Amino acid sequence: MAEFTLLPIAWVVSTRTVTEDDAWDQERSSLVLDDAVPTEALIGIASFSHLEIIAVAHRVVDGANVRWSRRPRGRTDWPEQGVFAQRNKDRPNRLLSTTVQLLAVDGRELHVRGLDLIDGTPVVDIKPVFRWTGPRTPVVAPEWSDELGRDYF
Amino acid sequence: MAEFTLLPIAWVVSTRTVTEDDAWDQERSSLVLDDAVPTEALIGIASFSHLEIIAVAHRVVDGANVRWSRRPRGRTDWPEQGVFAQRNKDRPNRLLSTTVQLLAVDGRELHVRGLDLIDGTPVVDIKPVFRWTGPRTPVVAPEWSDELGRDYF
Repeated sequence: MAEFTLLPIAWVVSTRTVTEDDAWDQERSSLVLDDAVPTEALIGIASFSHLEIIAVAHRVVDGANVRWSRRPRGRTDWPEQGVFAQRNKDRPNRLLSTTVQLLAVDGRELHVRGLDLIDGTPVVDIKPVFRWTGPRTPVVAPEWSDELGRDYF
Repeated sequence: MAEFTLLPIAWVVSTRTVTEDDAWDQERSSLVLDDAVPTEALIGIASFSHLEIIAVAHRVVDGANVRWSRRPRGRTDWPEQGVFAQRNKDRPNRLLSTTVQLLAVDGRELHVRGLDLIDGTPVVDIKPVFRWTGPRTPVVAPEWSDELGRDYF
């Protein structure tokens, strides 16, 4: 069976240390390169305004307990959704993906805004956002996902 | 040392079978759920127009040979960039992330547009794009990244 191994390339530093869903803009947060990664890996990154961060929800117990579908946040007024029709952390492979604004590069530390990851989260990739890497046609999404975003940042 | 293991949850089916950089819109492509994943995982996914796909560049040799910085596509007229200031596949953890348009859901198969992954690529996550999960401020990016996108799709 195909199986792949990930090593952290950076770590989240955040004023948020507990798992809570909303108001992420209240926090100060940054990404610090892992000791195994040379500073060279960040050359030119300051020329981008936004980054895509891929991380592992390390506090989620991996494996057997994934629910393949559920109502987002358990809200009975929202529809049952498959795990791949949601972005929540309780998912196969526990991967999280989030787009942040890059505020400043300070040596091996990237200060960012809008990082919805708690302190100590292992980061497994950082990619710059290009002007053309997002959706190329208008985004259609259900009402519940708009509502979920109302107090998120 | 922290280390995480990934299992494929789906596989790429594409008319493109060799690694080439551009003109991805010429291909027909889809994602097919892995046998271990129940169809239930896709409930409600058709209510979204776009998906974020996280995959492993399985043909890249993992590990020791990562170049921490280089010129994108080896172009001498483009600046040296750190690996985290580029999106190319030769990177630590070999993770790829791409946003596609969802054209149709057919049982365990998702027909998509703009998938820049070759046939047989293992997919490790699928997330819906919400109206608010992209950049919240205007995207700034260097000229070379615009140029790279010109013939990409």
